[in-house]
This record gives sequence, C-alpha cells and structure tokens, in this order.
Amino acid sequence: MMKRMPTDVKLLLQEGAELTDRALETLIPSIETIPASIHGAMRHSVFAGGKRLRPVLSMQAAVAIAGTLPKGIERLGAALEMLHTYSLIHDDLPALDNDDLRRGKPTCHVAFGEAIAILAGDALQTRAFEVLAGLDAPPPAVVKIIALVANAIGTVEGMIGGQVLDLESEHIKPTPELVAAIHRAKTGALIRVSVVAGGIYAGATPEDGTRLDLFGRKIGLAFQIVDDVLDMTEDSAHLGKTAGKDLAMEKATWPAVYGVEQSLRDADDLVKEALAALDPYGDRAEGLKSIARYLVERKN
Amino acid sequence: MMKRMPTDVKLLLQEGAELTDRALETLIPSIETIPASIHGAMRHSVFAGGKRLRPVLSMQAAVAIAGTLPKGIERLGAALEMLHTYSLIHDDLPALDNDDLRRGKPTCHVAFGEAIAILAGDALQTRAFEVLAGLDAPPPAVVKIIALVANAIGTVEGMIGGQVLDLESEHIKPTPELVAAIHRAKTGALIRVSVVAGGIYAGATPEDGTRLDLFGRKIGLAFQIVDDVLDMTEDSAHLGKTAGKDLAMEKATWPAVYGVEQSLRDADDLVKEALAALDPYGDRAEGLKSIARYLVERKN
Repeated sequence: MMKRMPTDVKLLLQEGAELTDRALETLIPSIETIPASIHGAMRHSVFAGGKRLRPVLSMQAAVAIAGTLPKGIERLGAALEMLHTYSLIHDDLPALDNDDLRRGKPTCHVAFGEAIAILAGDALQTRAFEVLAGLDAPPPAVVKIIALVANAIGTVEGMIGGQVLDLESEHIKPTPELVAAIHRAKTGALIRVSVVAGGIYAGATPEDGTRLDLFGRKIGLAFQIVDDVLDMTEDSAHLGKTAGKDLAMEKATWPAVYGVEQSLRDADDLVKEALAALDPYGDRAEGLKSIARYLVERKN
Repeated sequence: MMKRMPTDVKLLLQEGAELTDRALETLIPSIETIPASIHGAMRHSVFAGGKRLRPVLSMQAAVAIAGTLPKGIERLGAALEMLHTYSLIHDDLPALDNDDLRRGKPTCHVAFGEAIAILAGDALQTRAFEVLAGLDAPPPAVVKIIALVANAIGTVEGMIGGQVLDLESEHIKPTPELVAAIHRAKTGALIRVSVVAGGIYAGATPEDGTRLDLFGRKIGLAFQIVDDVLDMTEDSAHLGKTAGKDLAMEKATWPAVYGVEQSLRDADDLVKEALAALDPYGDRAEGLKSIARYLVERKN
C-alpha cells in the first residue's frame, strides 16, 4: 500500500508505478486474446518501462485532497498511462518522428510493423476512455474527468495540437511564444489534467481544482523544459531513447531559445511557483511536492 | 424538423444527415483555429459526403423508444460519425489499405500527408469522446453510452479488432467463421452500438436495449454483406471509392465465401429478423424499419 506521506520520492514513484502496472496488467487484454498481434503490440509499448509519472501525479493529487489514496484510483492512472503511450507510439511512426528506440526498446512499429502500431495506438486511446467510463466514482465526476481528459489530448491547446505545432515547427526558427505553446499543449496538458483528474476523483471542490490546475500547469512546463535539456546533455543509453534528436531535427525546444542555463533556472522557478499553489494542503500535499522537486532534479 | 414517422426513407436519411452535418459543423473546430492543418484534415474527411447512416440509426432508435426525436441527439450522431470517419482515415493509410479515393475524393493522407492524416484520425476519436461526455442526458446514461461505444470500437470483438483480423486475413482462404467475425467486429459493432446508444439517450429500459441490440446486430451484418457485394458488382465512379479492391487484395468477404446470390439472400433474411425484433414498438419503429429495408436495396 502506498504511504500517505512518503519522505522518499523514489519509493513513492516506485510504489505508484507498481500499482499502475498491476492495473494495466488486468486492463489490457492478454496476448492470448484474439487478435493476439494488437494486444502484443499494446503491451510491448505500455510495459516498456515508463516512469508512470502521470498516474503517480493523479494518485498524489488525490492524497492531497482526500488525505488518503482513494480506492480504485490506479485505474485512472492506468488510463492516463495508456493515453501517454498511445501518443508515443504514433509520435514514433516513420511519418512523424521516425524513431526506432524508445525507453531502450525497439519502438512499436519496428517490433510489430506500421499497420499494427497505428492500430495499437488507436486501441490504447479507445481502451483508456473505456476504463475512464468504468471508474468507481459518482457518474458526474466520471463525466467531468472524461471531458477534461479528452480536451487535454485534443487539437485545441491539447496534446494532438501540440504534436502538430511541433511537426510544423521543424526547420523554422523557434520563437519563445511558439515553444511555450508547443510545450503547454504537447506534454503540458496531459500532465496538468492528470493532477486535476486525480483531485476530482478524490472529491475536489472547484477551488481545489483551480489550485491543482495551476500546480499541474507549472510542473508540466518544468518537466518538458528539463526533458529538452536532457535531450541535449545526456546520451542515448542513459535516456533510453535517441538523444540529440531535437537538435538534429531542428525542433523548437526551450534550450534552443533560451540556452541550457536559463532553461534550468526557468524550470526551478516554475517548480517553486507550483509548490506555492499547494500551501493550503500542508502535509497532505507532501507527495505531490516531492514529485515536483524530483522533476527538475532527475537525470533521465 | 425530422418527421416522427416519415414514409420516405430517402427524406428521412436526408433530414438526419442535415441535422448531423449541422452538429458536426459546430463541433469540429474551424479551419481558422490553430493548428489549421489538422482541422482542415478532419473537416476534409468528415465532410466528404458520407450517408450519416450511424447518426440516423441513433436518431430513429431514439424515436422508437421515446416516440419523438430527443433534444440534442444530433450530438450523439456527430460523435458516432467522427468515430466512423477516424476509422476510415486510418484504414486508408499506406500502411493499411493504401487507398487513394474515398467517397469520390482524395483520401486524407493524399490530401494532407501521412503525419497529419494519422493525427486527424486520432483527433476525431478524441473529439468524439469529448462530445459524448458533453451529451445532454443524465450522467449515468452518458457514462453507459461512453462505455458501450468504447467497447464497440475496441480490440475485443470491436472495430479495431475487426480491422486487425481483416488485415491478417489478406491472402489466406477465408472461412465462414472468420468472415463472420470480421464483419461483426469491423463494421457491425459500431452500427449496433449506434442503435443501442440512441435508445439509451432516449431512456431505453434494459429490455429495450436487448431488442435494439438484436436489431443492430442483424442490420450491421446485412449492411456489410451488401457492401461486399457492391464492391464486386459496381464500378468505382458509382461507389465513390475504389471498386474491386476486396478481390484484388484477396480480402475475406461474404460473397468470397458464399457467392453473390447467397449473400443477397442472407442479407434479406437478416433484415427480416431485424424487423421482427422491433414488433413491440409498432409505428414508432417505422423509421428504423425503413432504414433496415433500405440497407439491402441500396446501390452505393
């Protein structure tokens, strides 16, 4: 059982990841289920060793609101992770980023072919919404969570919109506004909604929602800035994905606009602002706060 | 306003399509909305001239239950049509069926490139769930509709599962069981759930749901059998898509197993069984019945 206020963020992340993995194990059909290829492909990418950051954020947001981990919240986390994985599978396709390596393993289309990879991404999105619809929360809260999550992964300031901006920004000189818009949409929106959805699952009031949203927005941007910096400063083996890719593809990144040092300062400032938003929750938000601090200190 | 019991199925289909198109027009972001390319691609495929069969089925199922067209049901229809269109966009991709022509127009990837086509399909799925979450029905009914729709387009006997079976059945000799499984999943499940969801939106009891499900299952299969026959017997200009494709790709189709004449007899029998399931609804089901009859008489 996850501790309410763990002092060790590594342990908190590990326990959250284990809870999430057990839920994913039961929620994604086995490779014995026909058609086997698609379930094999979904599992290949979902169980490639992600940090389960979004699920852990949803869990700790719930703890900040309810003081304890609500029953069944790991299913919300599993759905968020399926959505994240679907976006990675499609982003890695030859027609998009054309990446062969992800989390140290062959990407889905390398392992299963393009057709199955496209359908596996599709299916993870579908299954995520099915899992959300089955959440053990009052129907109005479930509907609210589905609406917010769908919005966060959509085209208007959501994940897909961010992917399109990212694609279309290759090989053009990035402006600060463009980079901020890409980050806010492409990775920021899903991280932000993970925090908010966890809160709603635990019975958050609208005021709680506003605070969690602010926290989620700040750490979402900080996370992506650090990701961009790591892509420039670490090697592929360490990251478990192709390093230096952003520079090679002339992607619009934070360090490309501001440089590495200023980027790291910006990430630090964002995390400080995020932590301040959680002041009203005192010790109950300690888990959430420790993840925010971890995001800027991590090395992969 | 759609008539309660129209005698002319063409008029009923036309009025239902117009209601659906107006909803789609407001629910899909305009091409002025950033990023413009993705919204252009979504609109290109959604407004390529589909029959809006699934929306009209949902509307007429609602009329069978409630006696009149419930307010806002066109948003349910629009979501179903977005899901259908997403599946067509991805099915047409080079890695899947590699089709250049759909409803007489260039397919999405031909017009917008593969990357945007993949993301446009993704985005239509996402937007469909967002629209479903915003339906003007009691939250428990909304949650039920989302769960059933997600299941119907999933991997286990749902649409994606059918696409995988279809892909993997190319160039192998089709058995009756395989063809039935593909049809049930690939097109049948979404047609079936369109009928059931329309009923739930209108307040269907579990008994109503069972009858509508039976009706939807039968006409879903009849529809696909007729589609397979048309692919063999009509030309591309008439169909608005590449004719003869199934034969060329050695697809597992109903006429490939049973021949054209037996296939048409099977479709007729299925429609008769479907009509019988609606007996308890008398005249209120006349719209739904007229669509069922139309499905086996159509020429494209």
